[in-house]
Amino acid sequence: MKQSSLFGSTLRDVPADAEAASHRLMLRAGFIRQLAAGIYTYLPLGWRVLRKIEHIVREEMDRAGAQELLMPAMQPAELWKESGRYNVYGPELIRLKDRHDREFALGPTHEEVITTLVRNEINSYRRLPVTLYQIQTKFRDERRPRFGLLRGREFLMKDAYSFDTSWEGLHDSYQSMYEAYTRIFDRCGMTFRAVEADAGAIGGEGGTHEFMALAEIGEDTIVSCTHCDYAANLEKATSVIRRSEAVDSSGTSVGEIPMAKIHTPDTRSIQQVAAFLGVQPHEIIKTLVYVADEQPVAVLVRGDHEVNEIKLKNALGAESLELADADTTMRATGAPVGFAGPVGMKIPIYVDQAVTEMAEGVTGANEADYHLRHVVPGRDFELAHAGDFRNAVEGDGCPRCEEGKLQYHRGIEVGHVFKLGTKYSETLGAKYLDPNGREQPMIMGCYGIGVSRILSAITEQSHDDRGIIWPAAIAPYQVHVIPVSVKDEAQTTLAQELYDRLTAQGLEVLIDDRDERAGVKFNDADLFGIPYRIVVGKLAAGGEVELVERRSLEKQVISADEAMTCIADGLRNLI
Amino acid sequence: MKQSSLFGSTLRDVPADAEAASHRLMLRAGFIRQLAAGIYTYLPLGWRVLRKIEHIVREEMDRAGAQELLMPAMQPAELWKESGRYNVYGPELIRLKDRHDREFALGPTHEEVITTLVRNEINSYRRLPVTLYQIQTKFRDERRPRFGLLRGREFLMKDAYSFDTSWEGLHDSYQSMYEAYTRIFDRCGMTFRAVEADAGAIGGEGGTHEFMALAEIGEDTIVSCTHCDYAANLEKATSVIRRSEAVDSSGTSVGEIPMAKIHTPDTRSIQQVAAFLGVQPHEIIKTLVYVADEQPVAVLVRGDHEVNEIKLKNALGAESLELADADTTMRATGAPVGFAGPVGMKIPIYVDQAVTEMAEGVTGANEADYHLRHVVPGRDFELAHAGDFRNAVEGDGCPRCEEGKLQYHRGIEVGHVFKLGTKYSETLGAKYLDPNGREQPMIMGCYGIGVSRILSAITEQSHDDRGIIWPAAIAPYQVHVIPVSVKDEAQTTLAQELYDRLTAQGLEVLIDDRDERAGVKFNDADLFGIPYRIVVGKLAAGGEVELVERRSLEKQVISADEAMTCIADGLRNLI
Repeated sequence: MKQSSLFGSTLRDVPADAEAASHRLMLRAGFIRQLAAGIYTYLPLGWRVLRKIEHIVREEMDRAGAQELLMPAMQPAELWKESGRYNVYGPELIRLKDRHDREFALGPTHEEVITTLVRNEINSYRRLPVTLYQIQTKFRDERRPRFGLLRGREFLMKDAYSFDTSWEGLHDSYQSMYEAYTRIFDRCGMTFRAVEADAGAIGGEGGTHEFMALAEIGEDTIVSCTHCDYAANLEKATSVIRRSEAVDSSGTSVGEIPMAKIHTPDTRSIQQVAAFLGVQPHEIIKTLVYVADEQPVAVLVRGDHEVNEIKLKNALGAESLELADADTTMRATGAPVGFAGPVGMKIPIYVDQAVTEMAEGVTGANEADYHLRHVVPGRDFELAHAGDFRNAVEGDGCPRCEEGKLQYHRGIEVGHVFKLGTKYSETLGAKYLDPNGREQPMIMGCYGIGVSRILSAITEQSHDDRGIIWPAAIAPYQVHVIPVSVKDEAQTTLAQELYDRLTAQGLEVLIDDRDERAGVKFNDADLFGIPYRIVVGKLAAGGEVELVERRSLEKQVISADEAMTCIADGLRNLI
Repeated sequence: MKQSSLFGSTLRDVPADAEAASHRLMLRAGFIRQLAAGIYTYLPLGWRVLRKIEHIVREEMDRAGAQELLMPAMQPAELWKESGRYNVYGPELIRLKDRHDREFALGPTHEEVITTLVRNEINSYRRLPVTLYQIQTKFRDERRPRFGLLRGREFLMKDAYSFDTSWEGLHDSYQSMYEAYTRIFDRCGMTFRAVEADAGAIGGEGGTHEFMALAEIGEDTIVSCTHCDYAANLEKATSVIRRSEAVDSSGTSVGEIPMAKIHTPDTRSIQQVAAFLGVQPHEIIKTLVYVADEQPVAVLVRGDHEVNEIKLKNALGAESLELADADTTMRATGAPVGFAGPVGMKIPIYVDQAVTEMAEGVTGANEADYHLRHVVPGRDFELAHAGDFRNAVEGDGCPRCEEGKLQYHRGIEVGHVFKLGTKYSETLGAKYLDPNGREQPMIMGCYGIGVSRILSAITEQSHDDRGIIWPAAIAPYQVHVIPVSVKDEAQTTLAQELYDRLTAQGLEVLIDDRDERAGVKFNDADLFGIPYRIVVGKLAAGGEVELVERRSLEKQVISADEAMTCIADGLRNLI
């Protein structure tokens, strides 16, 4: 491809609201352009990368035995009403009416469509299992589209759905997708972790994993072990807490000292209480009042810990969960917010495991401006509902191995595998006849990859001050040939010869045939991030070129033939 | 691919409203399924065909130097308001609001988006010309979706747009797309004609061609010459009419007989007048009153001819044109509908060329229940506005060659190339600086292919009573291997061996490994329409098979090796 003909400009400046590096770089390099908030055009360079990712996804899906189809974007609203998601999905679901006033949704996902499709096509166990996938434009009206392709409103997704006759079958289908995902992200050259995620009310044990591209900009927190391969997202991650020291700071054996009520005027927050009493936050027991399905409950966590509402909601089996307002707290505890405590509490108390390991602690006294000291869990309040209700924190013990400690990373969710079970097959009637002629619901799994998001995730992981650094497998071109001066015949001749030879090898080559200054050309090349660059300059007459590897920016002056050999070696997997 | 795992069922019955053969066959063969009116899912077999068509389109677009990108489906309504099409487009444009109540349209086409994109990327003649294309799902809320994929509401389209600095440049870009289209439809194995079409107010001479797949179900009429390569759609086709006989049926020389008013009670239609007076429809001059931009005009055509409203509208330069209602006709002619005539008419009269060639004719008398005989064009009414205002009819003389006569075909529009000129670049401000530093509007062309419609068009052209007959280049698989009995080891072994050998040659093979009766298998195979079928039956033990060519259904019993050779010969272009 001649760069003089390539559509798309490089930009010096990008909008101030482009916060993420990937967003800025893809705008600057002319890979994408915004049409509306969260809605982008892929220019030829960006589209080439996307097509390569798509190709890898397709190859690995096919290899895993999944069959490709294409479902419509426009979905009748009745389907969503049948599954019960039409209202639940909220304003993220884009709704429209056709000319006959019939309601439609623009598909953010296709469980409804695929389940009714399979319901109509398959009625016997003989035709199962089957895994189906599509690569398609999806629509989701995000409240706050941001970071370019990372959180868009119209995006490219691969979604797959498996249908089995048993949970063991589902496990195999799931495993097969899990492995395909691992190959896909590996082949794309991504640094990622597959992490356990919360499956909510369905999915069962090991029922869902998220594939996270590690990147600072990521909106998700991944918790992983320094020693073993344990990894989970923050909603799901558990940890181990050792029993705290059995001696308090004054040297007295704790647990034997009786509770004491102390006047603590205007000390509501953990920080205020700690400062006032001269204790550490981890010596305080924090009491929070929630309303779960309209019933108040209290949850206790250590003062330095955060409640994990997903864990709490799962433990309660609640549909809804939210922090109680001031009135509800007052009614439930007899005290204003900031002075609640478990002693004498009338509502159910859910005690985080780390609190059960405390020898004693400070709590609210359920009375304005008073706290209790020397409160002993199990002695002064019941531990009937103990469990893991908090976010794991860095430094906690790994729940899987004895030795490791937990650490945090930031991640971008690029894939998700999920055991749906019979949620949709029950609701939408996707049944099959088993060998005994009995009707059974199909056991489903669903599997998504954010195809366009990968573009951004890789850019986040792989760039420097000067531009993007594409992994060879998904680079828009593999080699960038740059004659420094297109007015110099030796340079243009050698550059063209290299272009022809590389192209003949099956490589994709961009040649910068523009009549521009060398600095402009080199800047654009750095921005584009093509893995190998051959600069054909003054040494062209002697058959020598400068070979630059984009990642390291290492340069070597070598003969044109040697450059060909180096590139062939470097790209052996692609030729 | 093992047929036992293939997703999608063959159907015996299809809905009664599936009128078109392609619609019925693709439903029956399990290629597509309807989700809502005009909205379809492509099952794996249908999707494979579609992907092959897509691949051919992409290859030929790239070969023609067009660059691929992808624009969003969701387009801000402001863009459509800026171009002036938001209201004009009517209910076919699907409209929606996002969560912030901003208006969007779902793209039925992308002139607005591409023009503003190019406006922002290109500002100098140095960066032109450029042709950009995408293959994308389009949305059009058809009033009456029908014929399966032939007229859908969500469909796959290739749309391309060219940007030039001159009309000569546009001509080259246009020609390049025209040739690419010819290669695409040839490669897809389609029978088609490129026909001249009406370019309306813009486009200029030779400004637009439609690519028509010939098929009876087609909604368009193509007019072509029996002798030369003239072809146009009915809106555009012109023809040559010889002067009528200069002697009337009574033997008197016509043109010298004066007009005569005749009482013709209740004879309003051409048929009634012809019957009452004992003349032929082509001896009658039909007078129709239209309202063009709110002004009444009359148009005269021969009694056996139809007014071509597009030609009339173009000649009038009118924005709107519709038949006058009874009141307007009464006011304009002084007579009720059915008795209008040119003699003494006060409103402008547009006379079709075929009428100017009549020696004399019968017309209305502008008086209820009266007609005039022996009316001579040019003598009894003016021919100031004469022209081609009628549809060409079969048997008319060809406007291009001396010898041919015109004939009709039915066609399905599968492609369209159009010289847009500066319509969008002027409205949306897509200007560039010419070598003199002066701002000029870009000269545009647009080029569409109905990718999913091709699937149906080919099925219409290529099927028989038993099913679809796919051209090899786009068949879902090229070879269908059918062991008659999967319980017979000799058969399954030989079938598997053939499957492996054919696959190793790079062919796509479907093997019917189902435990079904031979009749079921053969019926399904006929329905699928895979070009070559190898039936592995009782002769398998002796290494012999039956090779069936789907198109002819010719069978030959030959050795497995000979079958391999026959197939390799037949599919030489694909291997």
